[in-house]
Amino acid sequence: MTVKKVLVTGASGFIGRQSLPELLRRGFEVHALYHPNGKANIHTAFPREILWYPCDLLREERSAELFKQIRPSHLLHFAWDTSHGKFWTSAQNLNWVATSLCLLKNFVEWGGERAVFAGSCAEYHWSEELLKENSSPLLPSTLYGNAKHALQLVFSNYLKQCGVSGAWGRIFFLYGPFEGENRLVSSAIRSLLKGEIFPATHGRQMRDFMHVEDVACAFVHLLDCDASGPVNIASGKAHSLAEVLQILESLTGALGLIQLGTRPTPVDEPMHIIADGSILHNTLKFTPHYCLLEGLSHTVEWWRSQIL
Amino acid sequence: MTVKKVLVTGASGFIGRQSLPELLRRGFEVHALYHPNGKANIHTAFPREILWYPCDLLREERSAELFKQIRPSHLLHFAWDTSHGKFWTSAQNLNWVATSLCLLKNFVEWGGERAVFAGSCAEYHWSEELLKENSSPLLPSTLYGNAKHALQLVFSNYLKQCGVSGAWGRIFFLYGPFEGENRLVSSAIRSLLKGEIFPATHGRQMRDFMHVEDVACAFVHLLDCDASGPVNIASGKAHSLAEVLQILESLTGALGLIQLGTRPTPVDEPMHIIADGSILHNTLKFTPHYCLLEGLSHTVEWWRSQIL
Repeated sequence: MTVKKVLVTGASGFIGRQSLPELLRRGFEVHALYHPNGKANIHTAFPREILWYPCDLLREERSAELFKQIRPSHLLHFAWDTSHGKFWTSAQNLNWVATSLCLLKNFVEWGGERAVFAGSCAEYHWSEELLKENSSPLLPSTLYGNAKHALQLVFSNYLKQCGVSGAWGRIFFLYGPFEGENRLVSSAIRSLLKGEIFPATHGRQMRDFMHVEDVACAFVHLLDCDASGPVNIASGKAHSLAEVLQILESLTGALGLIQLGTRPTPVDEPMHIIADGSILHNTLKFTPHYCLLEGLSHTVEWWRSQIL
Repeated sequence: MTVKKVLVTGASGFIGRQSLPELLRRGFEVHALYHPNGKANIHTAFPREILWYPCDLLREERSAELFKQIRPSHLLHFAWDTSHGKFWTSAQNLNWVATSLCLLKNFVEWGGERAVFAGSCAEYHWSEELLKENSSPLLPSTLYGNAKHALQLVFSNYLKQCGVSGAWGRIFFLYGPFEGENRLVSSAIRSLLKGEIFPATHGRQMRDFMHVEDVACAFVHLLDCDASGPVNIASGKAHSLAEVLQILESLTGALGLIQLGTRPTPVDEPMHIIADGSILHNTLKFTPHYCLLEGLSHTVEWWRSQIL
């Protein structure tokens, strides 16, 4: 049997790091890229079987060499600029499109067989209530969404033309261990654990949330099958932000600290960003580990272990 | 008055070279990039006012330095891989997207004010009879079309976000001096001038043809106004390939040499690729120099001077 050899970019990042145990469990030989200036301690925090390579994808010409050296059969591409609050409009989105195209070309030219790239719900036009992979309009409103969607256009056509298998995972909303401190779920949990008031918007926005471990496992599931095209990486279940925050309040026992309606809601914030999850869950038979309550509970416990 | 300083990529290429006199005529200070291995003799073939820079955009990191050095107010980006027969599927399309994004970012970061990039009719879904900038579906069938369209998505959104002015010229069919010898009009003229039979398809395909000088002048017109978004660079008039070939037969006096229906028509060849030219001609008031007959006549005379 041929060895399944995967190159993972962004492997020490929020989603990437959670994909590694599942890749090992499924028998992949895992070659993982990490940013040389990153904070992750790759020597102690990860399974020892992972083969690590320092690589600043944006600055180095090293990616071509790495493909030549490793000759991965599979490519799982998570790396991107996702600095909270900045990534929607960052000019780095242009560099990430360029870098990702370079990765893709090198992968194919060195004999790659299957690629899965991380896309985004921001590729869709958010006017639709339920976002479906093959029928909802793709009209991103942000530079980030346009960059991801532009990459997907070339990704899909190039792989098809080369006869190389590929799928495109569109990420929705996620939470879990190692999430940036300023993101909604993390910052709410941190406030609640410290006994501080957490001012929030009205909270009626409906979103599809998935625990980051499930997001990572869904990507590995996608990599390890032969599905092609875009696939929503989401639970398929919608919850209001108020519901999420109220669960956190109840899990932390910090009743009364979530103050809905005390922060203004941005005027352009869409009320619904909800995935049709039927390809992932019904067609591809992916089963998530966590429901929302269990996932949030796990995340609260993780933050408790970090803070205390 | 501020000097209008334009950086032109692909400036010694088929369209680029024809844009230079018109840029000078309109008062631009012209900084022109050419490929160091290119065949164009930049010292004798072009107006002396042009400032030339050798630059292999795909291989060099030099473009960032050039922007820093020149600080162009305008950018006119023609450079791309257009090797006849190969460019539709060439993996170089990925590099050209990456390179073009890098150019765009450097241009904006060094104070650029207005950019015009060359797009393509291949960005449209060719099922529509009349291709309109703001309503025809964009669903390219080729890697080239996807690459150009992907670039346009990021180009438009990034410039809008940065408050930098930009337009996107979608090129249709063109002909004229210096066209590649194997393209339809060039190869037909060369056969006819040599008295050789020219086998052709049935010729009922309807296309929008424009003389390359007019294409180049339309790009300069677009650069020198403040229109934004995609603009079809086309005559707005459809002709069948048979009509074009019969005009050439009559202009060369080589009657009977065009043999329609003796070459198979590719099964996936669209019957109509016709531009709505109303934005360019009516809104932006561009007036082409050549009608089809005059343009083809000029091209025949040019080839006569080359061959004889």
